[in-house]
Amino acid sequence: MGRRDRIPYSVVGPDGLDEGEGGLDDLRRATETLPGAGFLWVRLNDPDGSTVAEALELLGLSTDGVEAAVEPHRRPSVEIQGNTWRFVFKTLWYVEDTRQVETGDFVCYTDGRMVLTVRHGGSDPTGAVVNRISSDEEVRAEAGWGVLYGLLDNIVDRYQVAVEDFEDDVQDLEKEVFSEERTELIAPIYMLMREGLEFTSVVRPLVPFARQVIRGNVRVDELARPGFRDVAEHILRVSTTLDSTMSLLQAVLQAHNSQISLWQNNDMRKISAWAGIIAVPTAVAGVYGMNFTNLPGLHWAFGYPLVLAVMVVICLFMYRGFKRSGWL
Amino acid sequence: MGRRDRIPYSVVGPDGLDEGEGGLDDLRRATETLPGAGFLWVRLNDPDGSTVAEALELLGLSTDGVEAAVEPHRRPSVEIQGNTWRFVFKTLWYVEDTRQVETGDFVCYTDGRMVLTVRHGGSDPTGAVVNRISSDEEVRAEAGWGVLYGLLDNIVDRYQVAVEDFEDDVQDLEKEVFSEERTELIAPIYMLMREGLEFTSVVRPLVPFARQVIRGNVRVDELARPGFRDVAEHILRVSTTLDSTMSLLQAVLQAHNSQISLWQNNDMRKISAWAGIIAVPTAVAGVYGMNFTNLPGLHWAFGYPLVLAVMVVICLFMYRGFKRSGWL
Amino acid sequence: MGRRDRIPYSVVGPDGLDEGEGGLDDLRRATETLPGAGFLWVRLNDPDGSTVAEALELLGLSTDGVEAAVEPHRRPSVEIQGNTWRFVFKTLWYVEDTRQVETGDFVCYTDGRMVLTVRHGGSDPTGAVVNRISSDEEVRAEAGWGVLYGLLDNIVDRYQVAVEDFEDDVQDLEKEVFSEERTELIAPIYMLMREGLEFTSVVRPLVPFARQVIRGNVRVDELARPGFRDVAEHILRVSTTLDSTMSLLQAVLQAHNSQISLWQNNDMRKISAWAGIIAVPTAVAGVYGMNFTNLPGLHWAFGYPLVLAVMVVICLFMYRGFKRSGWL
Amino acid sequence: MGRRDRIPYSVVGPDGLDEGEGGLDDLRRATETLPGAGFLWVRLNDPDGSTVAEALELLGLSTDGVEAAVEPHRRPSVEIQGNTWRFVFKTLWYVEDTRQVETGDFVCYTDGRMVLTVRHGGSDPTGAVVNRISSDEEVRAEAGWGVLYGLLDNIVDRYQVAVEDFEDDVQDLEKEVFSEERTELIAPIYMLMREGLEFTSVVRPLVPFARQVIRGNVRVDELARPGFRDVAEHILRVSTTLDSTMSLLQAVLQAHNSQISLWQNNDMRKISAWAGIIAVPTAVAGVYGMNFTNLPGLHWAFGYPLVLAVMVVICLFMYRGFKRSGWL
Amino acid sequence: MGRRDRIPYSVVGPDGLDEGEGGLDDLRRATETLPGAGFLWVRLNDPDGSTVAEALELLGLSTDGVEAAVEPHRRPSVEIQGNTWRFVFKTLWYVEDTRQVETGDFVCYTDGRMVLTVRHGGSDPTGAVVNRISSDEEVRAEAGWGVLYGLLDNIVDRYQVAVEDFEDDVQDLEKEVFSEERTELIAPIYMLMREGLEFTSVVRPLVPFARQVIRGNVRVDELARPGFRDVAEHILRVSTTLDSTMSLLQAVLQAHNSQISLWQNNDMRKISAWAGIIAVPTAVAGVYGMNFTNLPGLHWAFGYPLVLAVMVVICLFMYRGFKRSGWL
Ligand SMILES: [Mg+2]
Ligand SMILES: [Mg+2]
Ligand SMILES: [Mg+2]
Ligand SMILES: [Mg+2]
Ligand SMILES: [Mg+2]
Ligand SMILES: [Mg+2]
Ligand SMILES: [Mg+2]
Ligand SMILES: [Mg+2]
Ligand SMILES: [Mg+2]
Ligand SMILES: [Mg+2]
Ligand SMILES: [Mg+2]
Ligand SMILES: [Mg+2]
Ligand SMILES: [Mg+2]
Ligand SMILES: [Mg+2]
Ligand SMILES: [Mg+2]
Ligand SMILES: [Mg+2]
Ligand SMILES: [Mg+2]
Ligand SMILES: [Mg+2]
Ligand SMILES: [Mg+2]
Ligand SMILES: [Mg+2]
Ligand SMILES: [Mg+2]
Ligand SMILES: [Mg+2]
Ligand SMILES: [Mg+2]
Ligand SMILES: [Mg+2]
Ligand SMILES: [Mg+2]
Ligand SMILES: [Mg+2]
Ligand SMILES: [Mg+2]
Ligand SMILES: [Mg+2]
Ligand SMILES: [Mg+2]
Ligand SMILES: [Mg+2]
Ligand SMILES: [Mg+2]
Repeated sequence: MGRRDRIPYSVVGPDGLDEGEGGLDDLRRATETLPGAGFLWVRLNDPDGSTVAEALELLGLSTDGVEAAVEPHRRPSVEIQGNTWRFVFKTLWYVEDTRQVETGDFVCYTDGRMVLTVRHGGSDPTGAVVNRISSDEEVRAEAGWGVLYGLLDNIVDRYQVAVEDFEDDVQDLEKEVFSEERTELIAPIYMLMREGLEFTSVVRPLVPFARQVIRGNVRVDELARPGFRDVAEHILRVSTTLDSTMSLLQAVLQAHNSQISLWQNNDMRKISAWAGIIAVPTAVAGVYGMNFTNLPGLHWAFGYPLVLAVMVVICLFMYRGFKRSGWL
Repeated sequence: MGRRDRIPYSVVGPDGLDEGEGGLDDLRRATETLPGAGFLWVRLNDPDGSTVAEALELLGLSTDGVEAAVEPHRRPSVEIQGNTWRFVFKTLWYVEDTRQVETGDFVCYTDGRMVLTVRHGGSDPTGAVVNRISSDEEVRAEAGWGVLYGLLDNIVDRYQVAVEDFEDDVQDLEKEVFSEERTELIAPIYMLMREGLEFTSVVRPLVPFARQVIRGNVRVDELARPGFRDVAEHILRVSTTLDSTMSLLQAVLQAHNSQISLWQNNDMRKISAWAGIIAVPTAVAGVYGMNFTNLPGLHWAFGYPLVLAVMVVICLFMYRGFKRSGWL
Repeated sequence: MGRRDRIPYSVVGPDGLDEGEGGLDDLRRATETLPGAGFLWVRLNDPDGSTVAEALELLGLSTDGVEAAVEPHRRPSVEIQGNTWRFVFKTLWYVEDTRQVETGDFVCYTDGRMVLTVRHGGSDPTGAVVNRISSDEEVRAEAGWGVLYGLLDNIVDRYQVAVEDFEDDVQDLEKEVFSEERTELIAPIYMLMREGLEFTSVVRPLVPFARQVIRGNVRVDELARPGFRDVAEHILRVSTTLDSTMSLLQAVLQAHNSQISLWQNNDMRKISAWAGIIAVPTAVAGVYGMNFTNLPGLHWAFGYPLVLAVMVVICLFMYRGFKRSGWL
Repeated sequence: MGRRDRIPYSVVGPDGLDEGEGGLDDLRRATETLPGAGFLWVRLNDPDGSTVAEALELLGLSTDGVEAAVEPHRRPSVEIQGNTWRFVFKTLWYVEDTRQVETGDFVCYTDGRMVLTVRHGGSDPTGAVVNRISSDEEVRAEAGWGVLYGLLDNIVDRYQVAVEDFEDDVQDLEKEVFSEERTELIAPIYMLMREGLEFTSVVRPLVPFARQVIRGNVRVDELARPGFRDVAEHILRVSTTLDSTMSLLQAVLQAHNSQISLWQNNDMRKISAWAGIIAVPTAVAGVYGMNFTNLPGLHWAFGYPLVLAVMVVICLFMYRGFKRSGWL
Repeated sequence: MGRRDRIPYSVVGPDGLDEGEGGLDDLRRATETLPGAGFLWVRLNDPDGSTVAEALELLGLSTDGVEAAVEPHRRPSVEIQGNTWRFVFKTLWYVEDTRQVETGDFVCYTDGRMVLTVRHGGSDPTGAVVNRISSDEEVRAEAGWGVLYGLLDNIVDRYQVAVEDFEDDVQDLEKEVFSEERTELIAPIYMLMREGLEFTSVVRPLVPFARQVIRGNVRVDELARPGFRDVAEHILRVSTTLDSTMSLLQAVLQAHNSQISLWQNNDMRKISAWAGIIAVPTAVAGVYGMNFTNLPGLHWAFGYPLVLAVMVVICLFMYRGFKRSGWL
């Protein structure tokens, strides 16, 4: 980052929030003039590694594993290095039109007082949290942990929205599969499975963290607060719903597969019934087309209409029979 | 909640139970006049979050995570916050007519003396427990833990009923699948799977809690009592039966799938046998329909009946052959 | 239980065993006159809850969870309440004729000296153990633990017999599936799966107990004895064999499913080969049935036999060709 | 065992190995004259329970669970009773000709100084170890643990050989399945699965023991030696390869199943193409076989050859079309 | 190894790196003249066991389990023997042309100061690390741990590349499966599964090690450094992606299987539609081919063209009908 790039940051004191924006020098000044009871939150968008390292150093946070913050497609994880907590989460949302799961990367470093967040792609969870901080004294009192909680809550709430939309689409698909109408749905079922697997790979790595928070096994008191338990609860709930929905999709695919076999059988029987119906007059006509001199009826006045009527009657009987047996 | 909404509550002393109903002010008075050896049980139906918070505060219970109590579709869980236990259970029952699993939400807060229960939808497990308390001195002596046990027992007993009804329906389906009659049952099998998955997502999150109770690993002595062990036993039993029934359904679907393939084969053979039978007279007739001058038999007196008889005999032989080989 | 129902019991001293039978009063007398080095074993058949409670109290055993003993379809479990061990096992046997797994319920309460066993349905494992006690001094010396071991050993040995019979039937089925003969075996495979699942739901809940015994993690010394290890070993072995056999059944079903597809293909090819063979003379006859004035051969002396011979020869060639390619 | 049966045993001192053979009396004498720095190894083949018990007692080893040593089809396990370690392993080898996994039983009792091995069926791993002991001073110095290690190493090395042969056969099968040639392979795939499951049921029970050895969690120092780690490593490697190969077989079966569906489709299309080709001249011939007075062309000189030519040309065009579309 | 084989090694001091090459004698001299703050790294390519043993002894490293280093197809593992860490990793890369996973063996022994690496086949990760050491003072300061980290990082980074290429190919396959075009892809799907299973068997054994590093449960401080955490993170990420991709492949195979059934159905319907269309004129022609004297129309001037027109019209109507219903 050049010295002249402008980074947004917030200086928060007990009484309110000052939004700032500036280069690293401005940032240094902000840390130096930070009131005792306040905290600082710096927000980076798609930075390179050296910017993150400089910012971390400036904020007195551990720079260990800093390269990780600029790598794309990080695995969600929660780690402590010295006084610094690093939360790597993926932002995730579900595009209903395309039935696609989309993801971005989000990293939050904090020691409780200084906060650095790094966003790569995806939607931005920081806006809502800035508002909450500026309007809610209690959140300000929680300092860095309040920011962290706000961010996680925001991100995880979106998982909840996404999993519900995903569930909806699975249910829509299910309705289509079991509707009266015959539609081939192999690709749509597969595509939902695919997105479900992508979703799962975002949520599953967070489950052990969530379990620890709920059991109270986390090393810092702050994370034992109800807010974090709520986030953890959400993660577990999303994970459970996701697993259950994936099992459903699996069952839908199996059932659809059986349906396809059944369609084939029904079509084959319908085809065969019609083939059988037309085979009879063909055979009868063949018989009367034989060149026997003494074939009775050939020279009768009503021979032809009689035979024709017999053909039609047989066909009608067969038709009725097939209708009754369900083949037609 | 307006001050004027009327909440049902029970004041319970060693000698009996007083049913009351009133606003939060009445409630406050009840807590202040509560006899030393007694306890208080407040019951809310579909309250909003602030009512729950006020009631909790009034009863001296922790309000942490209170928003959770008004959120729909909570994940079942058991948590301790300070002196307060929070049990989130789902009420569940099985509608036999529609083969649907239906669920409601139920939360119970208690410190052993004060009890607050919150119900959202679903059937009401409190009535039976109120009766038990008013009639059974021993249950009254257990105070809040007695109420809690009664509620859980009631809720979990219904799981048991539901899982048995579910099992019954799976067995009915199984009988249909393997009956003589040929019925397509893909959708019914799937629909039962679906409900089974919904059921599982209610019961599975309770299994770790049940295991802890049975191992005696829970942090409060009260939960080690036989009553709670019985509840835990029920949860495990329901969970086991459910898993086993789901495996059965899976096997039924696989077997049904194989049946459909087999039906297809049988139908195809039946169709082909008939097609074969009719192809023979058609071919013979074709032969005698050829315009050869010297085709022997054409001008014989019994040429035609003879050929006709030959056709019929061949058809009969073929019919018998197909019958014997099982194709017809 | 009426006071006049007669309960069988055994008073066992170092020197031998006294078989008795009587009401609860007789039982009380027996407990009071029990020699110091002896023990008492009371056996109830299909008792109601109050009888069990009275008997437990009389024997100085914990009545906690006594209702559990009269509930049908208990989940197998092992529990300690105060000085009292409660073992809930299911008796299980395999009926070879119907290929059905049958189960009964069996509960054993003991503090090492007093033993109460409760049986609901199923076969009776007590007879063999009574004999063993009366004939073997060493078993008598083990008192209640000897009885318990004898019972568990007897029950679990029957699991072993059952799992072997089950394995046998799976192997019989496997042989049928892969025999030369074509038999549809969907229902039999499914039915064995079903019984296997029932079997599994009896054995699986005992596996954690068995593991603990083998690791020596059980809280009472007595259970660390070789006899109990042997029981535990048997449980694990039965469980392993069962899992393996179920996997086999699953594979058999998959393979059978593929077979059915293959049969269909073979049948279809056979049908088509015959249809092809008969279509050729039909077409040829059609050609010579055309009403052209100048159709060569129609008026030749050997026109008809020639054409007929050609038809037959073509059919024979086709037949040979299809035979060679394996379609016929 | 009669007093006169002759049991092979080895008396091992620092300087070498004395092979002996004799009854229990000879054995007793050998234990009594055993030099301080030496050890004794007794080898029983298919003994009955009492012989094993007598031999154990004679060697000062625990006779707990001795019946287990004569039971067939033991589950592999590792147990300690007092000073005595009991290793129950299964010997296993793979018969390439029949693609069969064959197993035997092998039990080794040792307190580090005295060793008793019991073999039931299967190949004999003792010969190689006797040789190693007599030729390698270092192995002699390890006394009983050296013997034990040698035996386990020998047994587990054969697992390795077996799993490689098994893998080879799976790869052969895979090649056949995906070869150009069309071969039905349902039964061979299933048969390999079956043997794989048998193999797994031998190896899987040893995995927890192997894990413990590698983590150094075993209770006796001797087992922490590199040799035992190597055995443990082998067990884990065999187990991993086995699991992976079984997954492969599962995938092969699925793929083969899809192939069978595909064959069916291809055959059906080929059949239909030929049926379509022959249907056209049949229909055309039918048209010219109609008895219309004024059917044009019937009386032309080249009517018949023209129509015949048209038929042939249509057939050729259809043939080419079907060839191009891949139906033929 | 003969005394004259030349082994490459590096002598590293605070100021830089000396590349050497020589026999074991040269190596001995190098260890003896190694400066206090430096370290030595010896690199063996496809050595035999005795060379490895001699080299380990020379470097003062534990020779326990040395045979393991020369065995092919080692299972990845991490072990400590005395002061010596042994890392067995597999080098792995993905050949895009053949869609094949290829693997080599790599073992690293170190006590932090002395390093011995052994390579069998596969690509060589040492080159890049030698460069890094010679150019980066900080890496030199980490001595043996820096070498180890560099190697693991290099190896695991290649896993990442491989898993991404693998994912790419799965996505390509997926696109082909769900493209408009109909292609049979059973074998390619299976082949990718196969390589994925090989990949998994390399990565999965490393997962427990990675988990321990991230939890900080490893016994040596050095491994708690950020670098190793990064390696561990990569392993977990690769493992997660691999599992997810394998699930995807499984779903692709299922979906493709359903597709094949569907193709069959579509083909069958198309075939039948054409068969039905041609059956109608055949039947009509048969009717007019009957030899009735009074068959109306036979002698009309426009009888033939009329009937022909009727045939054509019926065929066209049928064609349109089939087109509309999607059968054609
Ligand atoms: Mg996506
Ligand atoms: Mg939230
Ligand atoms: Mg929606
Ligand atoms: Mg939608
Ligand atoms: Mg539909
Ligand atoms: Mg919430
Ligand atoms: Mg099929
Ligand atoms: Mg429902
Ligand atoms: Mg109950
Ligand atoms: Mg019912
Ligand atoms: Mg019902
Ligand atoms: Mg049926
Ligand atoms: Mg109960
Ligand atoms: Mg049964
Ligand atoms: Mg036994
Ligand atoms: Mg039998
Ligand atoms: Mg049998
Ligand atoms: Mg067969
Ligand atoms: Mg036994
Ligand atoms: Mg075998
Ligand atoms: Mg070995
Ligand atoms: Mg081989
Ligand atoms: Mg072979
Ligand atoms: Mg092939
Ligand atoms: Mg080895
Ligand atoms: Mg490969
Ligand atoms: Mg890296
Ligand atoms: Mg690529
Ligand atoms: Mg590619
Ligand atoms: Mg395609
Ligand atoms: Mg990295």
